[in-house]
Formats: sequence, C-alpha cells, structure tokens
Amino acid sequence: MLFAGIGLLDEQGRYYENQFLGVHGKKIRYIGAEPPQEDYGERYEGRGKLLMPGLVNAHSHAAMTLLRGYAENLALDDWLNTRVFPFEDRLTPKDIYHGSLLGIAEMLRFGITSVTDMYFGGDAACRAALESGIKMNFDTAITCFDQSDLWDLPEYQQVRPLVQELHGAEDGRLRIDLGIHAEYTSTPKTVQQMAGWAKETGLRIHLHLSETKAEHEACKMRHNGKTPAQYFDSLGVFDAPATAAHCVWVEEPDIRIFKARGVTVACNPVSNLKLASGFCPAPRLLEAGVNVALGTDGAASNNNLNLLEEARLFATLYKAASGDPTAVSPAQAVYAATRAGALSQGREDCGTLREGARADLVVFDLRGRPYYHPCYDMAGNLIYAGQGADVCLTMVDGKVLYRDGVYTTIDLERAIWEAERSASRIAGELGKEHAR
Amino acid sequence: MLFAGIGLLDEQGRYYENQFLGVHGKKIRYIGAEPPQEDYGERYEGRGKLLMPGLVNAHSHAAMTLLRGYAENLALDDWLNTRVFPFEDRLTPKDIYHGSLLGIAEMLRFGITSVTDMYFGGDAACRAALESGIKMNFDTAITCFDQSDLWDLPEYQQVRPLVQELHGAEDGRLRIDLGIHAEYTSTPKTVQQMAGWAKETGLRIHLHLSETKAEHEACKMRHNGKTPAQYFDSLGVFDAPATAAHCVWVEEPDIRIFKARGVTVACNPVSNLKLASGFCPAPRLLEAGVNVALGTDGAASNNNLNLLEEARLFATLYKAASGDPTAVSPAQAVYAATRAGALSQGREDCGTLREGARADLVVFDLRGRPYYHPCYDMAGNLIYAGQGADVCLTMVDGKVLYRDGVYTTIDLERAIWEAERSASRIAGELGKEHAR
Repeated sequence: MLFAGIGLLDEQGRYYENQFLGVHGKKIRYIGAEPPQEDYGERYEGRGKLLMPGLVNAHSHAAMTLLRGYAENLALDDWLNTRVFPFEDRLTPKDIYHGSLLGIAEMLRFGITSVTDMYFGGDAACRAALESGIKMNFDTAITCFDQSDLWDLPEYQQVRPLVQELHGAEDGRLRIDLGIHAEYTSTPKTVQQMAGWAKETGLRIHLHLSETKAEHEACKMRHNGKTPAQYFDSLGVFDAPATAAHCVWVEEPDIRIFKARGVTVACNPVSNLKLASGFCPAPRLLEAGVNVALGTDGAASNNNLNLLEEARLFATLYKAASGDPTAVSPAQAVYAATRAGALSQGREDCGTLREGARADLVVFDLRGRPYYHPCYDMAGNLIYAGQGADVCLTMVDGKVLYRDGVYTTIDLERAIWEAERSASRIAGELGKEHAR
Repeated sequence: MLFAGIGLLDEQGRYYENQFLGVHGKKIRYIGAEPPQEDYGERYEGRGKLLMPGLVNAHSHAAMTLLRGYAENLALDDWLNTRVFPFEDRLTPKDIYHGSLLGIAEMLRFGITSVTDMYFGGDAACRAALESGIKMNFDTAITCFDQSDLWDLPEYQQVRPLVQELHGAEDGRLRIDLGIHAEYTSTPKTVQQMAGWAKETGLRIHLHLSETKAEHEACKMRHNGKTPAQYFDSLGVFDAPATAAHCVWVEEPDIRIFKARGVTVACNPVSNLKLASGFCPAPRLLEAGVNVALGTDGAASNNNLNLLEEARLFATLYKAASGDPTAVSPAQAVYAATRAGALSQGREDCGTLREGARADLVVFDLRGRPYYHPCYDMAGNLIYAGQGADVCLTMVDGKVLYRDGVYTTIDLERAIWEAERSASRIAGELGKEHAR
C-alpha cells in the first residue's frame, strides 16, 4: 500500500506535510516527499489525513471489557472483593476469549496496534490476538500466598506451554511475557524463581508496582523499609527486561532503580483517577530518563480502551499534579503512546516511522473536524484536541485490520453479541440486575 | 420531528429504552413508551441511538479557537503576557466573529446546545451565535485598574447597547450577562456598581473566581483575609443570580456562601489541569448542594470544546484528588453537563427531558462502537467510555443544527478557512513562525 500525499507525525511528535509512505509486506519500505519509483499496490489518498506509528497499549486486561461498568464508584477493596473477583471466578476460557476479542476490536478502533495484556484463562486471550491480527505481549501473572515453589503454581502450569508453543508466533506478533501480579500477592521465593526463569528464557517480566499508597506502605512495613521497586530489585527481577505498571507511589530511589535497570513504567492515568489511586510522578520519571509508556488498564477501571485519552491526560494531569504547566509536552506524550510502548514490549522494530520498521500504523482523518484548526503544531493538536474516534485506518505488520468502520478480521456484531451474552450470564448468576 | 424507538437518558442519568419523543415548534411536546397520536412530521429512527438533553457549556471563550495551540506548555504568566494578550490585542471584531463561529461549530459537533461565552469585541460573538442557531449567554467582562466609575469603562459602553438591543433576542436564545473578569482585574467601586446594575436590570453575573492559588491568596492579602468569594459577596455581587467559573481554590466558608446565595460554580477540569491551576473541590461543592456546571474554558487552555471530556474528568479526576473513589457519580456528571448548566444560564425550561421544555437535544449514535458494550448502566457507559465524536444530531429550540457531519446553518469549510486566515495573519504579524 502506498500512502500518498499524507501528513506524517513521527514518534518524536515531528510533523511532515504531504509525504509518501510505502508498505511492502510487513514493513515500511519507503518514506519521502516524492512519490517512490516502486509499485506498492493500492494507493491510499492521504489528503487531510495524518499517519503516525500505531499506538501501543503497554498495560491492559482486554477481557475485562466484560466488566465494563459492572463495578462502579467503589473503593478499591469493595471493587475487587465484592464485584471484580466474584465475576472473574466465573469466567470460562470461552468468556475470556469473547471479552478479549471485544477489547481488541475496541483497541483497533482507537488505533492501538500492539497491546501488553495480563490475564488468566490459558491461551484464550492469545487466540483472540492471533485471530484479530493485533500484536500482543501476553502474560498470566503468578500469585502465591504460601510456601509453594514456582513450578507448583497453577499459573506456571498454564504459562509454561504458552511459552513453548506460542512465544514468537506469527513472526513475533505474539510474545509471551512472565507476569508477577504484585508484591502483596506473591512470595519472595516465587518472585526469585520467576526472576531465574526470566533469565533462563530471556523473556520479559511484567508486573503491577506501587499502584496504591496502601500497597506501597505495606510493602515497606513487611520488608524492612524496602519499597516494592527495591524489593523486586533485590530479588533479581530487574535483571530481566521489565515493565512495571502504575508506579503511582514510587519514590526517588525507585526512580533511580528504574533508570539504572532499564525498567519501563507503564503509566495508566485514567485508571489511577477512577480508582482514586493517585498521581504517578510522570514528570520526574521523564526527567530522570526512564522509559515511560502508556496503558489503558482494564475497561472495568477506565472504562474504555482509548489510548489517546491516556496520552491527553499524560500531557495535562501531571502538569496540575506537579504544579508545573511546562511538564510533559505533546511530543513526549506522542513518544510515550508509541515508541516507548514498543520498547517496553521488546519490539525494537516497532513504534517508529522509518524505512525497515514494522508497518504498524494508524491514520487519523482530520477532514471536517473543527478541532484540528487552526494548526500551529500538529502534535499539540492531536494530543490536546484530537479524538481517538477519528482513527480511520489501523494497520499491523502491513495488514489493514480496521478501516472506515469495517474490521477485516473481526465480526464486530458477533463479538459484541458473544461478549454481552457472557457478561449477562455471569451477572445473572451473581444475582445482579443487568440494568440494561 | 418524532424520535422513534430511541433510548432516552434524562438529566438525572436515568435511562429509558425504546421511547418516543415528539418535538413541536421549539418544545418537547410528547415523551412516552408508545407512539403518540399526533403527527410530528419527520420520523427519526432511533434504534441503537441515545437521546439526552443538549450539553451546556457553562464557561467558555469561543473566539479563542483562534489561539488553539498557539500558547503551549507555559506557566500562566508567560502564557497570558507573552502569548495570549499580544494575540488578543490584534483581534478585530471580524476575527472574533470567525473564531467564535469556528468554536460554535465545534461545540455543535460535540452536542453542546447552549454556551456561556465571555469575550470582547462588541457583538461579534453574538452575531455568530445568532447566525449559528446555538443558545448563548454572552458577557463582556469589565476590567478596571484605576478610580473610574463603571459607566466610564469601555466595556460598559460596549455592553450597554448589547443589553438593550440583543438581550432576549430570538425568543430568549441569546441572553446578555454582566461579566466581571476577576477580583484582581477590577476595583471594589466598579464591582459594586456592576452589582447595582445587575440588580436594576435583573441580569445575571458571570465571573472568574479563585482560579489560581496566587489569585486567591493575593485577594486575601489585599482585602483583610477576605477570599474572592467573600469579597464579591460583601460587595453585593451575589445579590444577583451569579455563576463563578473555576473555583479551584475556594474554601469551606466560600462553599457556604455559594450554597446560601445560589451561586453556580462552573467547573473547568481540563483547563485547570493544562494550566496547572489545581483541583476544584467538586465533591465538597456537590455534597454542600451547590449547583455545579461544567465548562470547557477557551480552546487555548483545553484545547478542544468537547464537553463530554469535561464530564468524564469531572467523574474521575475528583475521585483521585479527594482520595475517594465513590465521589462524583456518572449521574452527577450527566446532571452537571446538562441541567446544572441550563440553570446557571437562567434557563429554567432547558437542560431537561420533559414535556413542555425547550427541545435542546443531542443524539449519540452507539451503533458499531465496541465501547458501549456490555451495558450495565447507560449513564456510566456514556460518561466513562463514550465519545463526543459519536454525536450524530444536535438540535436547539427544535431546529436541527448538526446532523451526521452536516451543519444546517454553518458553512464549515468557510468557517475553518476564515478562522485560519485570521489566525495566520495575527501569528504572522507577531513574527511567530506558523509551524504548520
């Protein structure tokens, strides 16, 4: 496909008007101000449109679309214990597949080309990812509350075959990460064994870290003043390439650890607001040179999977939280939503507009939308004013997955119907009124 | 027009499936689960759509669309003095007309049926409102830094004819309010005289109040510990029906004044984040029974006029800022975005779905959008997950102004072109690179 006469916004937020970008196979082969010599097949008319690297959702639980709106306006404890956990206890792998597929459909609609997804249910989410064409780093997080060894945990038994059979599938489109749910839901022994497993396999580690103040403080109480970051570091977790989600309550020494050990922070601003978790020190993380990516978290605490809303909040919320209106620029938000996410997934050849990179691309239609005018700076207009709903094309590995309301790999009506059926059944079982 | 088989979301956030709503002239004449006997002309097929009261933007500066993205990532002082004021100094009434029309087009696109607009430039914004069909409460805020009387101020000279000639125009579609810019930009004498003028005319007062901490504290220094709210109250301002915008730094006694005097707070969460102004104590205001409405502020500090984003932030940001995840429900956000705004404009017959009320309505198209599924609570889905871009019809006083991408009163291409021309000229004059 040849994108012709289109505006390009690169991962650094730099804008180039009226460009040509040619995709061959899975890769970007040509970028230039002049039409290429080679034939790239279909010519895509780019006038009034903006092409940028696909958005990367660096922390999500796609199947939780089934719980969208099911547990609202509750304190975290109630939210988890009275609503989320009882619902999740009833999820079958089939439900998880349907919920994941609906979540992936929504992500593609909002220009997300790659997602890091943490959930259970064996290969259900992976199957949804493989069928849909999206990129995914999938992990099932281990939890442990007794003296078990890692290899005795049910999650380990689930994940091991995924690592053997699915890691790297579809030319790397699907990757398996090793998940640790959190400090408060695991033991030093299993965490250390996970770190060893990661070292042995070269796999990435994904975990929740310092999401709430209670979690952060309780960890310090339990572990001689060690913060979650210090605790995990001391157990060798950050010897592996790692992504820590949330990091709302991290302190200066934690930030130094992230920088020194190359840990990515996956920041989830909407979820942190909705659950009243607090404000991630994003400006400090950026200033320290930490790789900061963006995540939507699950739909139960967001309640959508529109990464541009995270990017907007990333560039506005932390101005107010830090009291500094110069903190976090639109260009930094563009980078966090694209390249930083790709790096957090160990995908060096993704999240960037350059020849040879993977053709994971998103196109925004700017035509007839008053809010893109006037335009002094395209990155600013997109981040501060743009709408995720303006995405008109989402491409992964050179394949169009969404275009002008149409999915090429997902039967949306059926995906909605199946997900609603799963959700209704479980809500019904739980004796809750499905107040539609 | 008869909306047939449509979902209704009322101003309290209550949802009714498969309803009929008939509009006759400027009003809602019929609401029911059965088709009406009367003929309402065009039948609008409502399957898969959601109809609710039109959104009310309770604090804006529409013409500032011309400055969208012009002054970014700056501290408030720099923002105003080095960018905003020099730009505004060069605005002609024609520029203001073009900027206002573009802003109104954007508001209609996002389902806003009524706006409270504060700006200068004589009747420029009013003309844009009258032509476009939107409802507007317009005010030009007085500023005074010397010993002048109100009647000597240029703003007074501008506003007086507007009050005489335009207040109540088009069956009340346009109203003129009396604007006071802020405590720090006026004198007790002129403020008192404004209060007297409001009493005499019965007009509403609109003002900025406690937007920044510096403003709030400086007022207390200047006026024997009186906060801006206490200062204005002591000068009789709240003897008139009044709306105070921002109210980020108000204290408990201020909140009691608002409640006792019936002052509406127009909360502007996005602007308060982007300019790092802080967090309005919205949960406390709601708890105290203050009427809290929502505003977008101007596009220079937002940067769009998508009121649903304000509503989403209203229902999420103040959870985190107050540390209470139960604060501000979706239903409260729906009310703030509709009825509370109408009341803040003195429009008792607007912002509500009931027979006899004005037909200021917005329709969202939910079809084919994964993020509206599943649906346990419609208000929750709309506020937490919905997209302003899903608005497919905006009606004011029974007249369709926007439908499926088409404006009935605005030539959008021309409005964009004119606004860009004004913006380019001024940016050019200011020797700034127009970095398109």
